[in-house]
Amino acid sequence: MCLHGTGETVRSRTEGAAPGAASAPPSGARSWPDGFGRVVDLSHTISPGMPSWDEEKPVRESLGPPTPEGEFGFYMQRWTLTEHTGTHLDAPGHVIGGGRLVPDITPEELVVPAVVLDIRERAAEDPDTTVDVDDVLGFEREHGRIPEGTAVLMCSGWSTKWAEGDAAVRGLASDGTWHFPGFSPQACEFLVERRSVAGFGVDTLSSDPGNSTDFAAHEVIGRADRWGLEALTGLDRLPPVGALLTVGVLPGLDASGGPSRVLALW
Amino acid sequence: MCLHGTGETVRSRTEGAAPGAASAPPSGARSWPDGFGRVVDLSHTISPGMPSWDEEKPVRESLGPPTPEGEFGFYMQRWTLTEHTGTHLDAPGHVIGGGRLVPDITPEELVVPAVVLDIRERAAEDPDTTVDVDDVLGFEREHGRIPEGTAVLMCSGWSTKWAEGDAAVRGLASDGTWHFPGFSPQACEFLVERRSVAGFGVDTLSSDPGNSTDFAAHEVIGRADRWGLEALTGLDRLPPVGALLTVGVLPGLDASGGPSRVLALW
Repeated sequence: MCLHGTGETVRSRTEGAAPGAASAPPSGARSWPDGFGRVVDLSHTISPGMPSWDEEKPVRESLGPPTPEGEFGFYMQRWTLTEHTGTHLDAPGHVIGGGRLVPDITPEELVVPAVVLDIRERAAEDPDTTVDVDDVLGFEREHGRIPEGTAVLMCSGWSTKWAEGDAAVRGLASDGTWHFPGFSPQACEFLVERRSVAGFGVDTLSSDPGNSTDFAAHEVIGRADRWGLEALTGLDRLPPVGALLTVGVLPGLDASGGPSRVLALW
Repeated sequence: MCLHGTGETVRSRTEGAAPGAASAPPSGARSWPDGFGRVVDLSHTISPGMPSWDEEKPVRESLGPPTPEGEFGFYMQRWTLTEHTGTHLDAPGHVIGGGRLVPDITPEELVVPAVVLDIRERAAEDPDTTVDVDDVLGFEREHGRIPEGTAVLMCSGWSTKWAEGDAAVRGLASDGTWHFPGFSPQACEFLVERRSVAGFGVDTLSSDPGNSTDFAAHEVIGRADRWGLEALTGLDRLPPVGALLTVGVLPGLDASGGPSRVLALW
């Protein structure tokens, strides 16, 4: 609807621009040529002690001393991390032998509209709750049918636990079991078969709930050749419908997934 | 101009959608609710032997055997890489002590309109050529004034050399000197001071030309508190104006920069 004419838009804005624009760094609220009004970052910062599914924590090393304040020099770090560190994407081949890997996912699949299923109230009372087909149908009664090619994101409120560490994020019980919300395999099947969605996203450590032992949601998503985003944050700031998701997944060779900078625009 | 009404768009498309959408994975040309028609990936695949500025090549390890074809299981890799691997962003603090680091860059700065300055013809004859103020003014005579908050991308054609390895990408001469195009510091100053651009991008290893010894373009960009993208690819597929850039930079703690999945939409 809009970007087809963006070239003209840039030119017409240009003619009216004041000469000698200010040199302040552009930031904060402003309008893009195509009219997006908001951008929200849906990715956690990657840090050495951050919560994770397993004990494979990201490791960083400094490659030289920091540059003195205000001086010109070169400062950088080196990271060692798995493809499932922090906010990340699971490619189909992460869980299905021979499935597509990150370089096989087309750019078109990484820029998709998003809908947000908000189960925060229920998750606060029952950490084992799942997104079910009824949640999808209830959402559609209010917001309309989920269009083909959409990313369906579960907002359980779990991202607020990231600051508390692994035990809180995993929902670790005294008997060693884990408890956090996820998708039911039936909801995933419905969304793939009946809505032809592009992918899934959760603000927990896994597309499956924490108490899953068969990882059935992972298997449905992988066999359907779709991607799943895990450990998203900031989903409470998105509208239920209307945001565009851009999934900046690290493009590793033969990668089963990758840490992802996910931005939402609307 | 468009996304303010996207919610309504989703709903209205929804009502007319055919029941029981197909389950084929959504891919290829299609229309998003907001009307983008094209997405182009501007990032190189990260691989162990890929060209790099220094000898810090990315290293990968497999964390277990591959899953047999068609079976359900878990496959993944671990990567060790610097913040300046592959297609990546330099934060201001990479080159200026105390400058902003990756987590300090706002989401709004990572979603910006792009213009492409095409110097391929000149670069093919002279690898030491630079983008100068005259190139900017010539571009503006044809395409209009570069709006505030734009990313200015140099398309030198250099990304085609990535398959040839380090010597070709670095433009290594028999005397050991390097030769590839870049920005002149004067052009960077002009674009920051007079056009208030959001950032810079090159399809070479460095914002400065390969024969630079003082890295003056880096210093101008860093002191201006702007970011620079390096080792972009696919710039020849972008329109001169009209694309929207989303910069999916790895969000590392205290990071001087990061490997970035950069997508262009229009």
